[in-house]
Amino acid sequence: MNKNRLEAFSDGVLAIIITIMVLEIKIPHSANIQDLLKILPTFLSYLLSFIYVGIYWNNHHHMIHTLQKVSGPIMWANLHLLFWLSLIPFASGWMGENHYKPYPTMLYGIILLMAAIAYFILQGVIIKVEGKNSKLNQAVGNDWKGKASIVCYLAAVCTSLKWPWFAQVIFVFVAIMWLLPDRRIEKVMHS
Amino acid sequence: MNKNRLEAFSDGVLAIIITIMVLEIKIPHSANIQDLLKILPTFLSYLLSFIYVGIYWNNHHHMIHTLQKVSGPIMWANLHLLFWLSLIPFASGWMGENHYKPYPTMLYGIILLMAAIAYFILQGVIIKVEGKNSKLNQAVGNDWKGKASIVCYLAAVCTSLKWPWFAQVIFVFVAIMWLLPDRRIEKVMHS
Amino acid sequence: MNKNRLEAFSDGVLAIIITIMVLEIKIPHSANIQDLLKILPTFLSYLLSFIYVGIYWNNHHHMIHTLQKVSGPIMWANLHLLFWLSLIPFASGWMGENHYKPYPTMLYGIILLMAAIAYFILQGVIIKVEGKNSKLNQAVGNDWKGKASIVCYLAAVCTSLKWPWFAQVIFVFVAIMWLLPDRRIEKVMHS
Amino acid sequence: MNKNRLEAFSDGVLAIIITIMVLEIKIPHSANIQDLLKILPTFLSYLLSFIYVGIYWNNHHHMIHTLQKVSGPIMWANLHLLFWLSLIPFASGWMGENHYKPYPTMLYGIILLMAAIAYFILQGVIIKVEGKNSKLNQAVGNDWKGKASIVCYLAAVCTSLKWPWFAQVIFVFVAIMWLLPDRRIEKVMHS
Repeated sequence: MNKNRLEAFSDGVLAIIITIMVLEIKIPHSANIQDLLKILPTFLSYLLSFIYVGIYWNNHHHMIHTLQKVSGPIMWANLHLLFWLSLIPFASGWMGENHYKPYPTMLYGIILLMAAIAYFILQGVIIKVEGKNSKLNQAVGNDWKGKASIVCYLAAVCTSLKWPWFAQVIFVFVAIMWLLPDRRIEKVMHS
Repeated sequence: MNKNRLEAFSDGVLAIIITIMVLEIKIPHSANIQDLLKILPTFLSYLLSFIYVGIYWNNHHHMIHTLQKVSGPIMWANLHLLFWLSLIPFASGWMGENHYKPYPTMLYGIILLMAAIAYFILQGVIIKVEGKNSKLNQAVGNDWKGKASIVCYLAAVCTSLKWPWFAQVIFVFVAIMWLLPDRRIEKVMHS
Repeated sequence: MNKNRLEAFSDGVLAIIITIMVLEIKIPHSANIQDLLKILPTFLSYLLSFIYVGIYWNNHHHMIHTLQKVSGPIMWANLHLLFWLSLIPFASGWMGENHYKPYPTMLYGIILLMAAIAYFILQGVIIKVEGKNSKLNQAVGNDWKGKASIVCYLAAVCTSLKWPWFAQVIFVFVAIMWLLPDRRIEKVMHS
Repeated sequence: MNKNRLEAFSDGVLAIIITIMVLEIKIPHSANIQDLLKILPTFLSYLLSFIYVGIYWNNHHHMIHTLQKVSGPIMWANLHLLFWLSLIPFASGWMGENHYKPYPTMLYGIILLMAAIAYFILQGVIIKVEGKNSKLNQAVGNDWKGKASIVCYLAAVCTSLKWPWFAQVIFVFVAIMWLLPDRRIEKVMHS
């Protein structure tokens, strides 16, 4: 099986997810500035989700880049990841429209948590196929970032009903953690 | 004619189908957990359809992979398959919103049946072009899975008006049958 | 400039056009068969438009396949074609929802006419760049099909306000004319 | 990192942006010509935005074409550009539905301004990585067009609240400026 088509399909799904999210920002029916400001929470929610999908695209790119051969389990683990990511527009829209209230915040956290777990599973399946000496395994190392993210999302889900603002702080914090350049994979690739 | 562009176009259409389906899950206008639970049937319907489109993408990938040369009939048989698959978001949304009632269930079964027949036709057209000794023909063998699926969908359509729950059981059963690894094509490819 | 990216972008746009058209088929809010039958005109309109976009994708594929080098004018002539094709979902939805009434039928005819003219222009620009001895010029020949389509669409637009059903007959007739295999380009390519 | 996947992802996002914009043209519920004419402003707004996204795709194509190697900063600068472009359908729809009133016009200008700045940043990041002697740097030269566009958008934003029609004139003027063939990059590429 060819890894190019896995990349192309994943790129397609991620490109569509990132773009249809903007459809959740409903066009105000008047031309007032007040009506525009009302959609500010939805806009901020869109911005956060755009960054998250961007991070996943970036990491996914690096992960698949090291891949030698696509097997059935890799393909399904990849679809499993895309499934959770495909729910981000829904959760993001619900959270934005309802001004970051407890339940929408919790759902957003659950989707991020499930996507992180799905990413973790995909990584594990690839390393299992490619072997302990694979480039991916060396690059990932002990994967503290992936594990820390899962712990953070869990904390966000648990606190979301009581302190939804704290869960939001965690979402922003994790995004910044991933945005800061991670030289692990790049370093191993070029050595 | 180039098979890469057939793959790219099919990947694009399948990626969009799988992603726009999520737009059928309408965002609740309140932030209550009750309103979220109301969309559970739509979510489950989305999950089932996501798995079906994933299965088609996977099988389509294998089928086109063995292709040597794209002809006009292959292209139109492929578009015919994409046509029926493109109706899955509609049927899935109607079924989910109406809690798996008889007619939506019947329509969903008809769409799956037509897609399965279209897949069967595409397979036949490719084998006719590539010849009896082609890799695809050897890989497909007597194609019991494809034929069994068609029989199952027919059974689902026939029983949907009286026992819609039974039709749903069939949909889940067929999906599981395809999810279990099928080593036919992969085995022949690597021999 | 690279023709692969022109193909990829055009494939992307065509794949999205063909798929978002299905969003124009609004999900009925009840589970009755009567409500489903009400969307039959929209469905037939979708079917017709799906076939038209499929024909354009097929012909576009052949045309670009013979291309040696992408220039600025080719790129803009291609975007011009995509612009008119991108309006098909709108015209198709309006026509289906209003049961093939005069004005929607006329608009649909105008969009098809403009797309056909845009295709004609793109073809001309490519032949001008590639030269009279190019494969495309030989393959296209006197291009009776392209010219006949433009005449037919003109006839459909002119008659649409008085006899919208006649314009529909023309739309179906032109689609069938293109669906029947055209060996012109394929023959020259393989000689 | 591979520049093909950056191109494919950007192409996907741009293709989706250009195509989902058409969803902002809401289908009139009657078949009258008057109702069709009511959406004329939305249509013109769609046309303008289609041309802008087409210009960005064209320029982006040329810029990435000269690229040797994709780094993290290039990828994020590219996503930053795509973010602002992804807001064009929203701003375009709001402007069209509200007949080019002051605030929607201002928002449209701000989005175009931010996209132009993001393009400028991406260009700078690429030139920084590729070096002063890179093909892109020579091709871009003093980049008067890019700088002039930013000045024009600024002027449009500043005047939009008082004379929205003047801002529209600027939008059309900048689009025409970019549509006229720019031989800078092409010339250097072929030398």
